[in-house]
Amino acid sequence: MNTTTIPAKALQLRSLVKPGGELELSLVDVDVPTPAANEVLVRVEASPLNPSDLGLLFGAADMREAKAAGAAGRPVVTAPVPEAGMKRMAPRVGASMPVGNEGAGTVVAAGSSDAAQALLGKTIAVIGGAMYSQYRCVPLAQCLALPEGASAAEGASSFVNPLTALGMVETMRREGHKALVHTAAASNLGQMLNRICLKDGVGLVCIVRKPEQAALLKSQGAQHVCDASLPTFLQDLTDALVATGATLAFDATGGGKLAGQILGCMEAALNKNAKEFSVYGSTTHKQVYLYGGLDTSPTEFQRNFGMAWGMGGWLLFPFLQKIGPVAAQALKDRVAAELKTTFASHYAKEISLAQVLDLDTIALYNQRATGAKYLINPGL
Amino acid sequence: MNTTTIPAKALQLRSLVKPGGELELSLVDVDVPTPAANEVLVRVEASPLNPSDLGLLFGAADMREAKAAGAAGRPVVTAPVPEAGMKRMAPRVGASMPVGNEGAGTVVAAGSSDAAQALLGKTIAVIGGAMYSQYRCVPLAQCLALPEGASAAEGASSFVNPLTALGMVETMRREGHKALVHTAAASNLGQMLNRICLKDGVGLVCIVRKPEQAALLKSQGAQHVCDASLPTFLQDLTDALVATGATLAFDATGGGKLAGQILGCMEAALNKNAKEFSVYGSTTHKQVYLYGGLDTSPTEFQRNFGMAWGMGGWLLFPFLQKIGPVAAQALKDRVAAELKTTFASHYAKEISLAQVLDLDTIALYNQRATGAKYLINPGL
Repeated sequence: MNTTTIPAKALQLRSLVKPGGELELSLVDVDVPTPAANEVLVRVEASPLNPSDLGLLFGAADMREAKAAGAAGRPVVTAPVPEAGMKRMAPRVGASMPVGNEGAGTVVAAGSSDAAQALLGKTIAVIGGAMYSQYRCVPLAQCLALPEGASAAEGASSFVNPLTALGMVETMRREGHKALVHTAAASNLGQMLNRICLKDGVGLVCIVRKPEQAALLKSQGAQHVCDASLPTFLQDLTDALVATGATLAFDATGGGKLAGQILGCMEAALNKNAKEFSVYGSTTHKQVYLYGGLDTSPTEFQRNFGMAWGMGGWLLFPFLQKIGPVAAQALKDRVAAELKTTFASHYAKEISLAQVLDLDTIALYNQRATGAKYLINPGL
Repeated sequence: MNTTTIPAKALQLRSLVKPGGELELSLVDVDVPTPAANEVLVRVEASPLNPSDLGLLFGAADMREAKAAGAAGRPVVTAPVPEAGMKRMAPRVGASMPVGNEGAGTVVAAGSSDAAQALLGKTIAVIGGAMYSQYRCVPLAQCLALPEGASAAEGASSFVNPLTALGMVETMRREGHKALVHTAAASNLGQMLNRICLKDGVGLVCIVRKPEQAALLKSQGAQHVCDASLPTFLQDLTDALVATGATLAFDATGGGKLAGQILGCMEAALNKNAKEFSVYGSTTHKQVYLYGGLDTSPTEFQRNFGMAWGMGGWLLFPFLQKIGPVAAQALKDRVAAELKTTFASHYAKEISLAQVLDLDTIALYNQRATGAKYLINPGL
């Protein structure tokens, strides 16, 4: 436990879209607050760069055109926002926004309540935005005490990926499906989902784009891995859907033809055992939720899967609200209990706040490539 | 009442996809059955050619390549089914299928039950397939006695369009939306929906493709008509969505960009009054149901409408099953009560069974154009 002096001001990363169509990223000095009764002040030591964070960080800016300025340790990055993108940015124009959904660190000050005091000196995980900051003051409800011996780096991704993966399995159960399909399945989240499904005995069809991703998942025990780069992909997928009976998919890519292909293969799998022809297709409901947008091209599909289908957005926080606080807490408890096993995350590199605004580094982490997730340590 | 002698055999239209990839349409002689206790035998006098019927009638065949043969009064039409379409046809290959979802006619024989006997000589509407037949024997549950003085032509479309239009409003209420968007809104169904919404005080945004369709709907009292052929379409649609608060749409076209544009404009309308920016967009759920496929091109959309959205298939019969028999009967009772007003249908032409298989006539009704719906009279 290392409770050094708490500074009056500390650095926070900001993202600002200006009315003229320019994105500006910078580090600003903000006051370090004093925690209220049910709050704690956390010295942030680890915060992941998740795809969901990049959406807020870069907005609709064209980062290939980004330019660097500013003094050493106080970089300023600017990038143009194309006119088409400014429409979508309208609600945030002129607002200097902090970034960073989740992270972990040490509690260096605590409010007067017993619950807050109990966390003093502890390493905790935090959800709630503005985590790309050296210090963050947060309500207890947004904290998760890490198990004894877990480091901030180990706990930095305790919320978004673990709860999203658990939320997918929970959605499957609540909506009456018996197995799952997952795309971008070799991601940190995908590997986590595979471990959950193996542990819980849930059928999982993993869709990847490269042979090495398929090999990685198979080495981790995945039974049904379909490589979209193979010419046999649609047949492989149909076979895996027949084997698992999966009628629900979570798609991280969002764009292109993949979501529609999944529905089409589900329909083909269902019709394999169909006894009667219907012009409206199978009566079994087939669903794909788009929970990410790794592929920013338009979504496109042939409607070759009958009429019993749905496509839609899926987002963690509305889902947690829908299932209510008791069910949500049960998911969080499971994350804490299995933090170093089922929910372990891996990072390619640890970088400082200033390095988040380094053009070469941006070019690397903005690829959002499998196995290339970065971790920010604002104390570096 | 005209109870002429009932023949032993009568004509029925059939659609057959052969294994070699050929569609064959023909008229066959089938036995005229004797009704069981709770059945009636109907002499079919009017049956509409709905888009849903054309799906079963032509399957995946390329009707531009259709050829005619057969004797006068017994035409046979053949057309090639492209290889890509044969996959979808697999479950019906080799099965000679009767066609025609609904129709109306005179009860010429009835089973022994009192309820069946009560219909003898009456003009009734029928749902249940194979209506492109001179005689049809059906269970009472599939019949609807028409009000006194209503002709078979007036009652021929008592089920599909009226219940679909009522089902849309009912879906809106059950899923918590307060107004509706409808595409291909100048169709028979669209005009019906407009009359329901005017009567019930429900906000309706009508999307059409031509100025004359817009004029037609406006002349029928429609308040919010958006013409997709105008350069101001997206702005017009957004304004209409702000005015009505519609967050649910029923799209008959299915293909192209329209469904996605509707979601995008709904999001823009919701954000007009938004106080806070969220990278995930508005939290209000926006839904588009694709209930038809007038545009057979792929469905394509930009995901510029946040994460709270859904797209999916919508079909009348699963909907009626979901709401249950009591709620479904209430909808049917309303159709009978308002048959000549709210639920009146209009037809461009009355044709015989043989004319359904005339190549020039096929070319006309297969355009599925507004105001060009055909009515079959198997007695002609």
